[in-house]
Amino acid sequence: MRYLTAGESHGKQLTTIVEGVPAHLNLLKEDVNESLIRRQGGYGRGRRMKIEKDLVSILSGVRHGYTLASPITLAVTNDDFKNWEDIMGEDPVDEDQHIRRQVTKPRPGHADLNGALKYNHRDMRNILERSSARETAARVAAGSIAKKILSELGVKVVGYVKEIYGIEASDLPISVDEKIEKSNKSLVRTIDETVEESMKQAIDQAKQDGDSIGGVVEVTVEGVPAGLGSHVQYDRKLDSKIAGAVVSINAFKGVEFGLGFKAAQTRGSETHDEIDYDETSGYYRKTNRLGGFEGGMTTGMPIVVKGVMKPIPTLYKPLESVDINSKEPFKASIERSDSCAVPAAAVVMEHVVAWEVASAIVDQFPSDYMEQLKKSVEDERERIRTF
Amino acid sequence: MRYLTAGESHGKQLTTIVEGVPAHLNLLKEDVNESLIRRQGGYGRGRRMKIEKDLVSILSGVRHGYTLASPITLAVTNDDFKNWEDIMGEDPVDEDQHIRRQVTKPRPGHADLNGALKYNHRDMRNILERSSARETAARVAAGSIAKKILSELGVKVVGYVKEIYGIEASDLPISVDEKIEKSNKSLVRTIDETVEESMKQAIDQAKQDGDSIGGVVEVTVEGVPAGLGSHVQYDRKLDSKIAGAVVSINAFKGVEFGLGFKAAQTRGSETHDEIDYDETSGYYRKTNRLGGFEGGMTTGMPIVVKGVMKPIPTLYKPLESVDINSKEPFKASIERSDSCAVPAAAVVMEHVVAWEVASAIVDQFPSDYMEQLKKSVEDERERIRTF
Amino acid sequence: MRYLTAGESHGKQLTTIVEGVPAHLNLLKEDVNESLIRRQGGYGRGRRMKIEKDLVSILSGVRHGYTLASPITLAVTNDDFKNWEDIMGEDPVDEDQHIRRQVTKPRPGHADLNGALKYNHRDMRNILERSSARETAARVAAGSIAKKILSELGVKVVGYVKEIYGIEASDLPISVDEKIEKSNKSLVRTIDETVEESMKQAIDQAKQDGDSIGGVVEVTVEGVPAGLGSHVQYDRKLDSKIAGAVVSINAFKGVEFGLGFKAAQTRGSETHDEIDYDETSGYYRKTNRLGGFEGGMTTGMPIVVKGVMKPIPTLYKPLESVDINSKEPFKASIERSDSCAVPAAAVVMEHVVAWEVASAIVDQFPSDYMEQLKKSVEDERERIRTF
Amino acid sequence: MRYLTAGESHGKQLTTIVEGVPAHLNLLKEDVNESLIRRQGGYGRGRRMKIEKDLVSILSGVRHGYTLASPITLAVTNDDFKNWEDIMGEDPVDEDQHIRRQVTKPRPGHADLNGALKYNHRDMRNILERSSARETAARVAAGSIAKKILSELGVKVVGYVKEIYGIEASDLPISVDEKIEKSNKSLVRTIDETVEESMKQAIDQAKQDGDSIGGVVEVTVEGVPAGLGSHVQYDRKLDSKIAGAVVSINAFKGVEFGLGFKAAQTRGSETHDEIDYDETSGYYRKTNRLGGFEGGMTTGMPIVVKGVMKPIPTLYKPLESVDINSKEPFKASIERSDSCAVPAAAVVMEHVVAWEVASAIVDQFPSDYMEQLKKSVEDERERIRTF
Repeated sequence: MRYLTAGESHGKQLTTIVEGVPAHLNLLKEDVNESLIRRQGGYGRGRRMKIEKDLVSILSGVRHGYTLASPITLAVTNDDFKNWEDIMGEDPVDEDQHIRRQVTKPRPGHADLNGALKYNHRDMRNILERSSARETAARVAAGSIAKKILSELGVKVVGYVKEIYGIEASDLPISVDEKIEKSNKSLVRTIDETVEESMKQAIDQAKQDGDSIGGVVEVTVEGVPAGLGSHVQYDRKLDSKIAGAVVSINAFKGVEFGLGFKAAQTRGSETHDEIDYDETSGYYRKTNRLGGFEGGMTTGMPIVVKGVMKPIPTLYKPLESVDINSKEPFKASIERSDSCAVPAAAVVMEHVVAWEVASAIVDQFPSDYMEQLKKSVEDERERIRTF
Repeated sequence: MRYLTAGESHGKQLTTIVEGVPAHLNLLKEDVNESLIRRQGGYGRGRRMKIEKDLVSILSGVRHGYTLASPITLAVTNDDFKNWEDIMGEDPVDEDQHIRRQVTKPRPGHADLNGALKYNHRDMRNILERSSARETAARVAAGSIAKKILSELGVKVVGYVKEIYGIEASDLPISVDEKIEKSNKSLVRTIDETVEESMKQAIDQAKQDGDSIGGVVEVTVEGVPAGLGSHVQYDRKLDSKIAGAVVSINAFKGVEFGLGFKAAQTRGSETHDEIDYDETSGYYRKTNRLGGFEGGMTTGMPIVVKGVMKPIPTLYKPLESVDINSKEPFKASIERSDSCAVPAAAVVMEHVVAWEVASAIVDQFPSDYMEQLKKSVEDERERIRTF
Repeated sequence: MRYLTAGESHGKQLTTIVEGVPAHLNLLKEDVNESLIRRQGGYGRGRRMKIEKDLVSILSGVRHGYTLASPITLAVTNDDFKNWEDIMGEDPVDEDQHIRRQVTKPRPGHADLNGALKYNHRDMRNILERSSARETAARVAAGSIAKKILSELGVKVVGYVKEIYGIEASDLPISVDEKIEKSNKSLVRTIDETVEESMKQAIDQAKQDGDSIGGVVEVTVEGVPAGLGSHVQYDRKLDSKIAGAVVSINAFKGVEFGLGFKAAQTRGSETHDEIDYDETSGYYRKTNRLGGFEGGMTTGMPIVVKGVMKPIPTLYKPLESVDINSKEPFKASIERSDSCAVPAAAVVMEHVVAWEVASAIVDQFPSDYMEQLKKSVEDERERIRTF
Repeated sequence: MRYLTAGESHGKQLTTIVEGVPAHLNLLKEDVNESLIRRQGGYGRGRRMKIEKDLVSILSGVRHGYTLASPITLAVTNDDFKNWEDIMGEDPVDEDQHIRRQVTKPRPGHADLNGALKYNHRDMRNILERSSARETAARVAAGSIAKKILSELGVKVVGYVKEIYGIEASDLPISVDEKIEKSNKSLVRTIDETVEESMKQAIDQAKQDGDSIGGVVEVTVEGVPAGLGSHVQYDRKLDSKIAGAVVSINAFKGVEFGLGFKAAQTRGSETHDEIDYDETSGYYRKTNRLGGFEGGMTTGMPIVVKGVMKPIPTLYKPLESVDINSKEPFKASIERSDSCAVPAAAVVMEHVVAWEVASAIVDQFPSDYMEQLKKSVEDERERIRTF
């Protein structure tokens, strides 16, 4: 499977073309919308999220509720575009229009300046419209299809907030279903009610101070067949692909599996997962410190992966920067005002990880149509259980 | 640029084919060997590193000391293969031979079991020979070419040990050249002499206990042009590619850029890098908390990336596992006995990161031959300086 | 550069996302529409082409008449969709609706049967809607951007009809500009007026007989820099990529460069192109029998490539086939009625070849923005001229 | 599956790394050598083929006669390298050595000049050593593995000479096994004994005249499952991939499927293949004019693909060219002296097509190990038979 996204933040439409989805997958607009709406929620979001409700149109690849195997086009139109037509329209405009809303002041922490340098744009709107986190809606749309595939194969994925501004949720020994339920109920998308209030207070405080805060998202994937990915060539390891995908999410600065960076402080005897076997389940690990991967391949234990999101760079409390025309210093301007986007990022990362896992399954198993894929995954599970 | 590696740990030869290297790059066996030998050093390595000295043969793509632009073949032969010929030879053998050194006891933390499940191998030697970290020698060989390209472009790369078993080196405000010098002199490849002794003691203690320890490697890349990578599509972000590459190194469980996971505990106003300008250098950041990336593109500041390596899973103090034939539990056996491989991993990660950066440069700039590439990179630097 | 197309023949919309286009390319809807309209013309087309006029919307990647370097979304909506909504809509319908216009009779020469077998579709509408040549409109849209890039670099591309049903146009020693003019004026898109009438008569005759005819398209590309593609690895040869792209056009069954299959009948001394030099032009070939390629690389001479299109398989004079439910034989039904689509295919192949050439240029030269690309191509031409 | 080849014509070694081959494939050196030796035969080859006997070493990926799923390294060493060490060695040499055997006179029809222009090499040996058709030995080595996979799946591939210098073999209604036998017995690798003598005479005559001749190769693949490739995206059509691969063979200038270019002269009613059905075989075509493809997917009928090879450009009867230093005209020199290489090219094309077909199968079916792949292909055949 592969996909391309397109669209500017204040442009007409976000578009995603998804290629390689098996035929006969039940797929409705509602499936995609559910994901899009979850992404738009979250404590700490600013005004824009409230006025705009993302809704998808499916423009190809689906007929009568089922996929055709042909490419799927998902479109999220921007209702506000009428107010931006002059500024973001594709047709030539006169010079006066052209310089309206021109951006010459790069915001620290955004792509503004290096994008402008690279593409030789003197109006940084030409960069920020695309580098905006709005693009993650298009990735969530793609991921919602991946989640639908996984769901049919009995693979469950959930993303939740593990930490906000140093306030950390405990590792709770609860099922994925419970994690889904709890995180969906929590305004900060955490699964640990005991920290919810502190997280909200941290967000409120940051907002009050005109500042922003980041955090850590954890994604768990359960029901993954053992043996996805491969050790035989460096670029076929599945944890490597997931790592790349997580860091490609706007504002994510790191990723780790299982113990992750803590493995720099533990001994080998406390780090690896002992292997056991019983006739019902086959092989299993007594613990899951490695987060579901050994040698770049899934072990069959849940995938547990964390990603860190830095605080949003647009602040009321501005940072110093330099105008690219005058070269004069200035205090960086504000285009948006979320003080914490980690709850929304949990939804994004959930979908991004789901995509990688679903892709790995579709690549490895025969996947022209869903019945074939399902049977093949079931057969493989049985073979592995009795190996 | 792209490359494939091949070869089993006790097989005849490790081979790397590197494709897309510009013509006219000065490249000698010595350049590759220097990298290979640095990888073999390090406090805490076991016997094997001492008896074997990796030396490369260049079998194609280089003539009279210069690359031709045709694919480069790098071979590291295994002198010990004569002792393994029966066990690892490519020709059919009789049944008695075939089951000699057969492995039916999977080691926790290795690819043994999931590889066997996936490929339906009942002799796990068929997995462990390839999943062995010996493969990293082939990647270091590829990376040594990348480093040579970078060096001609004035880009400097260094990998050093940032942490071993919780003992952390300070962030020293020293140049890359000093980092190279200090880490090359240090047996644990750290740049902070004040922790060297404690690190060695931790390794000694782990060894004495029949246990192993891991750590964190940091790689710094200086002199990178701004604007490598791109924000326009999720799979073109350079930090994402580096993240994937680092996690693909054997035993690496996480990666972070700049502040990394600490950004979950800092505020926006303390996380982003303010922008400044002067006529001599052009734009620069006053700090480098984001590790050289914004929007998936290089800022021109040094790339600072950390990777975490888990402790080596082969322990004298064994872990529980299950024989795949008898299904009986056993205590996992030992094939190798390093107690800490982090110093060697620093060399590996240095080369892996160098590859990604060099690839990004070769992709973006015209690179049929080195003179063209050099001029083009210089012109770009000048354009950006005066933007 | 890369692109994905999506959309079913009677679906809502054809969509193309084009990725990797340099910034600052002047691009208007009119540029794309001109290509789309040229594709819709041609003697021998049936009713559908007349009622539908393809017009593009640019939904992303272009602002105020210039590309941003971000992905470009091109959409061609299907005005007739309102009449197909029940049949092709994405929402579930009741069983009665679902089997309306169901196709269980595979048409020989179409993808119907093998597509149905592969994807396990019992309604072959699920195949034919995507395998329809309507998809070529989306590829022409992508190609129109490629042509715009080439045009700014002084590279000219034209596709014209070389042969229809055995009636062959002469090789005329005229410029590309004249070829463009003549083929645009000709209803059968030939550049040889002396055969135009016979070609039309052949089409009329086929139509009258309820039959169809095919032909050969020739594409010429002038002004190509020498040295595109590479001999160093089999998958980097540019003629190979063009060959693959031409055969990927619906109904194309072969491709050849220069003398092509005639080279099986000529001697070496009559086949190769002698090399000459003068100070003004640098090196050149006295002839161009090899069609602009040696060793998979451009020579700087015009690229001359032919593709053969088989007759359209949908005939009034039907072919025998078998119903996939009843297994009863039947005479294959008609969905469309062009008797000859070669003139339209000339436009498609022109755009498909333009895409490959433009991609090769964008890959080889620095291409973040057009000014950089233009300067770099000009510098390379000068270097090569004085080599 | 993917592979990279490396090596210069007079270098130390040709190397191929093949990645993605299923585990448990029985693979012996002899399998590869058989293919290499077949490639070296053929009426009309010059001296070099006689002195050199290509023999492979398998350096990784195979153990005790079976593949491991890890990358396979195939090496063909050049026994003559000792005589070329000074000229082609990788170590620096003094200036005198460096200019020995320097080539400044580009040969028409070779990559010499455009390669030199592209890579800015003033010694064209740096090009011709890699652009030499010797590289096809490395591709045949890769293809021999593909053939082994196909053979286990009951898929048979054969390449034979269809035409030499206008002398055409008839289309004989014989089985693939007979084609293999006949072509292996024929010195010109034709399956039509009635033209063998004329072909040889044509070769003799060309040789006597100091000239060269080309021809057409046909490859037939039998036993292919229906539904390989896909119509859903232009770059997933299997005929397109085969077309690209065939044109990437040195000296190949065109490719066609089934009727190919003749389809420009036939009517629709004579071009398409009527569909029939019986309970034993399932669906089949009454004819095979389309060469086994509809909509870019296999129909289950034999793949029939032709490629045209131009005459070898190195002639005793020389062509005019220009020295790149003096700019003086000269008569192009001779490095090699085959007068006809079409019989050898038949072996090359057979292996190149086999690779594409095997890759398509391995991509579509689960292929971690051979037993799984075999069962899955058999199941699919049964499903399709009873669709």
